[in-house]
Amino acid sequence: METFARVLELIGTVAFAASGAMIAMKKRMDLFGVIVLGVVTAIGGGILRDLILGITPPLAFRDPLCAIVATATSILLFIPWLRHRLTHNQRLFEMALHVMDSVGLGVFTVMGIWNALAFAPARSTFLLVFVGVLTGVGGGMIRDVLAGNMPFILVKYVYACASLLGALACALLWKVLPSYAAMLIGSVLVLVIRLLAGHYHWNLPHADDVDYKI
Amino acid sequence: METFARVLELIGTVAFAASGAMIAMKKRMDLFGVIVLGVVTAIGGGILRDLILGITPPLAFRDPLCAIVATATSILLFIPWLRHRLTHNQRLFEMALHVMDSVGLGVFTVMGIWNALAFAPARSTFLLVFVGVLTGVGGGMIRDVLAGNMPFILVKYVYACASLLGALACALLWKVLPSYAAMLIGSVLVLVIRLLAGHYHWNLPHADDVDYKI
Amino acid sequence: METFARVLELIGTVAFAASGAMIAMKKRMDLFGVIVLGVVTAIGGGILRDLILGITPPLAFRDPLCAIVATATSILLFIPWLRHRLTHNQRLFEMALHVMDSVGLGVFTVMGIWNALAFAPARSTFLLVFVGVLTGVGGGMIRDVLAGNMPFILVKYVYACASLLGALACALLWKVLPSYAAMLIGSVLVLVIRLLAGHYHWNLPHADDVDYKI
Repeated sequence: METFARVLELIGTVAFAASGAMIAMKKRMDLFGVIVLGVVTAIGGGILRDLILGITPPLAFRDPLCAIVATATSILLFIPWLRHRLTHNQRLFEMALHVMDSVGLGVFTVMGIWNALAFAPARSTFLLVFVGVLTGVGGGMIRDVLAGNMPFILVKYVYACASLLGALACALLWKVLPSYAAMLIGSVLVLVIRLLAGHYHWNLPHADDVDYKI
Repeated sequence: METFARVLELIGTVAFAASGAMIAMKKRMDLFGVIVLGVVTAIGGGILRDLILGITPPLAFRDPLCAIVATATSILLFIPWLRHRLTHNQRLFEMALHVMDSVGLGVFTVMGIWNALAFAPARSTFLLVFVGVLTGVGGGMIRDVLAGNMPFILVKYVYACASLLGALACALLWKVLPSYAAMLIGSVLVLVIRLLAGHYHWNLPHADDVDYKI
Repeated sequence: METFARVLELIGTVAFAASGAMIAMKKRMDLFGVIVLGVVTAIGGGILRDLILGITPPLAFRDPLCAIVATATSILLFIPWLRHRLTHNQRLFEMALHVMDSVGLGVFTVMGIWNALAFAPARSTFLLVFVGVLTGVGGGMIRDVLAGNMPFILVKYVYACASLLGALACALLWKVLPSYAAMLIGSVLVLVIRLLAGHYHWNLPHADDVDYKI
């Protein structure tokens, strides 16, 4: 089980690091900017989660593996051949960013619940879901604020909503299924909702511009 | 006393949630963006305060009441009838935002002191005032950074100043008055200073544009 | 030794407060905005560090000295005579900002290591370096996000790189030299790298604009 969570975390780390590195490239940052934004995106959500749960120093500060993997991912994407492929094809770029961000969101949402169960003294469903959502959306939120973009969570189709449903599914299934199954279902659910939302341009009620005079 | 603090907190939660939801509507976000910004504004200051005081997991993660109230407030403001009223009248919008933000600032400033007194081991006046100001301005600061605005605290008439004076009054009066009176006076003081500042366009010394060539 | 660290911290506080105040003046903020941004920049990195290390309430909340020094520095820079000198000479302004920010970066990087050694239970080199870099870049990052600028760490010549090398030097030399020597060498190394980078316009690999179509 420990191994399963570890593998899942590395998948999420690669995905979020890639999303951070891609946004840094879009902003024309140099290699170090790309690495910094990749690493911060990949470990930011987990650091927030650990601060919330009172785990100090946060796990990312004790074990360099995630930081190393995130650094390697960012450098890899900066290799000219790969960078050219990504940055000369708007549709490919948008799609890769969407998928990477969605994978990271799904994985870190359930990783938040996993850590809350292991470390939090009280474990109400509300706490589990809240910590899960915060861990999931935290890395991307820090990434967007640093890059000067409006955070995905505030503007993207059903972003927080997807994380919330995945966290709820994971937290509830935890009681009836083996934990790896609950985590897998929760993270896949987030991913599927996000991909469908992107594909079909799902959106929540949204006031038209004509509604506003301010 | 516990009840008094609880009621005060709910008033601040509604006010800050409304300010977050209004700014989200101004930025043309969808329903979920409005809820997220409302909730983050309402509970952000308190989470910052709890992290500073070493209360983990933060109170907002243990008790869903504030999150629920903030969600309900945000949804309420998104109801078309109310939204139209607000968003078709620039002056009403600005005034409602100013009042809501000021109420939240006043309430959370004294709530910060209340929590610091309950949880902090050392309780110097400096610590109390500092925690009070941080709790007061924290939620709005997170709101403005996420929404891509310059934080109120950096640009609004005597914003941090009002919170500082209210916190100082509350912390000093705590020793001579019943605590609910100290909290009431502190928060009303913040509110009055902010409202007067808005009405009379008070401002601190401010370099004219002609002063600058950079 | 305690005294040496204390003096170093005050130097860093003055430098970072000055950088925050200058950026606030550039953004045409009033006196309170200048003070707030000066203080937040000066103590922000240390607060982040203390949260990461589990030191609650953070040291800056227990001892007002740093906040007072940062406030005084910000007010001093706002005195018309000094402000005019700075804001009427673009080159002087840029250079002063660069030097102040670099001094702060160097000092707080080694202060992070000093505090991590004093408070963290585990003290791997990775943890020390990571905490050092975070403390060094944290204050400036908060300053830039609040002021609505792209953070220096993402766009400036070898910014995080300089902090990383200084932290590494300090953490490794700690084992063989007296601690004040390790801290001095580490912080001077950061400063020298930053100044050389600014002077010679060093930069890391950076994709040309012709590389991009996104």
